[in-house]
Amino acid sequence: MKFAVVGTGVIGSGWITRMLAHGHEVVATDPGEGAYEAMLSQVKQNWPYAERMGLAPDASIDNLTFTPHLEEAVKDAELIQENVPEVEKIKDKVLTEIDFYAKPDAIIGSSTSGIMPTELQQNLKHPERLVVAHPFHPVYILPLVEIVPGAQTSESTVAKAEEIYESIGSDVLHVRNEIEGHIADRLMEALWRESLHIVNEGIATTEEVDKAFTHAAGLRYAQYGPFMTFHLAGGNGGMRHMLKQFGPALKKPWTKLIAPELTTDLYNAVVEGCEQSSAGHTMSELDQKRNEFLVRVKELAQEYWPENSAYMKKRTAGYAEV
Amino acid sequence: MKFAVVGTGVIGSGWITRMLAHGHEVVATDPGEGAYEAMLSQVKQNWPYAERMGLAPDASIDNLTFTPHLEEAVKDAELIQENVPEVEKIKDKVLTEIDFYAKPDAIIGSSTSGIMPTELQQNLKHPERLVVAHPFHPVYILPLVEIVPGAQTSESTVAKAEEIYESIGSDVLHVRNEIEGHIADRLMEALWRESLHIVNEGIATTEEVDKAFTHAAGLRYAQYGPFMTFHLAGGNGGMRHMLKQFGPALKKPWTKLIAPELTTDLYNAVVEGCEQSSAGHTMSELDQKRNEFLVRVKELAQEYWPENSAYMKKRTAGYAEV
Repeated sequence: MKFAVVGTGVIGSGWITRMLAHGHEVVATDPGEGAYEAMLSQVKQNWPYAERMGLAPDASIDNLTFTPHLEEAVKDAELIQENVPEVEKIKDKVLTEIDFYAKPDAIIGSSTSGIMPTELQQNLKHPERLVVAHPFHPVYILPLVEIVPGAQTSESTVAKAEEIYESIGSDVLHVRNEIEGHIADRLMEALWRESLHIVNEGIATTEEVDKAFTHAAGLRYAQYGPFMTFHLAGGNGGMRHMLKQFGPALKKPWTKLIAPELTTDLYNAVVEGCEQSSAGHTMSELDQKRNEFLVRVKELAQEYWPENSAYMKKRTAGYAEV
Repeated sequence: MKFAVVGTGVIGSGWITRMLAHGHEVVATDPGEGAYEAMLSQVKQNWPYAERMGLAPDASIDNLTFTPHLEEAVKDAELIQENVPEVEKIKDKVLTEIDFYAKPDAIIGSSTSGIMPTELQQNLKHPERLVVAHPFHPVYILPLVEIVPGAQTSESTVAKAEEIYESIGSDVLHVRNEIEGHIADRLMEALWRESLHIVNEGIATTEEVDKAFTHAAGLRYAQYGPFMTFHLAGGNGGMRHMLKQFGPALKKPWTKLIAPELTTDLYNAVVEGCEQSSAGHTMSELDQKRNEFLVRVKELAQEYWPENSAYMKKRTAGYAEV
C-alpha cells in the first residue's frame, strides 16, 4: 500500500515510522527548511523501537521517499495522513490542496487533536473521504487512533479507514460523536487542568502531583481504565456497590470539576458497561489479573525511572528535618 | 514494631498484609460479625503477592492476632491504623476510643480518603499524634501513602509517622496543605467525573472511554505523571514549549473542567518543577526511558488483559458492518 504523509514533525515522523515498520511505501512531504533531514533523523531514532516491537517482512527505511512538492507526494497514495500545525487556516489550505491532487477514492486522515472533522471537510471537493485519525505520541509505540467521521464522511470511508489503520497495527477507536478534543484528550485535559489548579493554589508542587499519580492510580491505567478501575474497587458488588457508596461523593468538592447528576440512565450505562468489559471474568479473576499486572508494572517503573523513588525519599527526608 | 489495625475490611486487610510482610506484629480488631474469618481469608489471598515482592526475614501470617476488643488491640501498639467506614460520626467515635486506650505517644493514622485531619482530631485528648495516612487499593502492592497533618498535628508526629510508613515499604507523600480528597484522589476524581460526563452525554460507552485511556495516555502514567508527560511532549523545549503552544487551549472546551489562568507564577512553578523532576537527564534521555518503558508496559498489558485488544477489534468490526 502507498501512504503519503503531509507534515513531517514529531507526529508525521511517528506515522512514517509506523507505516514503514508495517512494510509499506511512504512518500513524505513538508515545505519547511531542513524538514527532510529532521524527519530522517527522527525516523532513524524511532526505528529501534519499531524493530523491538516486530517489523513486517518487507519493512525498510528504504521504502521512504521525500519530496517538497505536495502534489507529487499525494497523487498516487491510498491514504494521506495530514499533520500540519494545529491552526485552522493552515489545515484548511493544506487539506484543500491534498483534496485537489489526490485520487478521488484516496482516504484523507487528519491528525488534529482539537478541530472537528465537519469543519475540516467543509471546503473539500470530496468531503466524504475525510476522517480525523488522531494518534498519540509516540505514534510508533502507542497503539490508539481515534477515527472520527464528520457530518459528510461516508460510511465506506470509515470502514476503509479503520481497515487501513488496523493494517499498520493501530488500535482503532471509532468516535461516533464529534466533540471538542475527541475522547482521549478530554480525559487527559481534565487531569491536566486539575493538576494545574493544585499547583496554582499552592497545595502541592508539580513533582508532588506527579508522584501522587505515578505511585498509585497511574500504575493501574495501562490495564484498566477509569470505569474498570472503579468496578474492581467495588469488591464483589463491582460498579453497583461503588456507585451506591461513592455516588453521593459526586457532590463533594473533591475536584474542581462538577460531576453530572447520577441519573438511572447514567447508572445503568455505567454498571452494564463494566459488566460487558469484564468479558465473562469473575471479580476474583479480575482482581488477580490486576494484582499480577501491578506487581510487574511497578518493577518496570522502578527499572526505567528509579528517580521517582529516590526523589520521594529525598523530599520526605527534607520535610522530616524541618 | 507493634501495629494495631482497627477496621479489617479490604483496606484494613491490605494494611495488615503490608505490615506482616515487613516482619511486624499486628493486632487487628473489628466488631463486625465474621470479621475475623473474612480478614484472614483476605490476608491469605494477598500473601502470594507480598511474597512475590519480597518478604522480610521474620515475616509470617503467624504474627497476626485478632481481638474483638478495641482496647486490647490498641493498648500496646506504636502505630494504630484506622480504617472504619467513611462516615464522620463513626470515625469520630472510633478515633476517640483509640485515643483513650492507646499509649500517649502512639501514632494514629487514619485511612480516610475524604475527611480532613483537622476535623478528625478535634475531639481527641492527644490530637497532636493523629495524621491522615491515606493508602491506595491494593494496599499491599501500591506504594503511595499520603501523610496529611491537621492543624494540631505535631511536627514530631509527622516525622515519626513518615519513618514508620517507610519502614513498611510505603512511598510517603507529605501533603503539606489540607484539601478535600487530598491530592491523588482529586486527580482520579477529575478523570472519573469527565468520564461520567462523556457517558452521560451519549458521546461514548464506558468501554470506549476505558479504551481511549488504556491504549494511549494510560500506558504512560506508571512512569511519568501529568506534568512530566507534557514536559516530554514538548520536544527539546520541554514544558516551556508545551505551555507556549497549548497554553491558549486551556480556554477551549476540551473538558468540562475550567482551567486556572496561566499566570507567570503558575508558568514558572510548572516549568521549574519539570526541570527539577528531570533529575539532570536530557530530553533525549527522558524520551529513551519513556520509549523503552512503553514498549514493555504495552506487552505487560497485553499479557494480563488481552481482552482489551480483542474487544477493540470486535467493536471495530461491528461498526464496519453497519
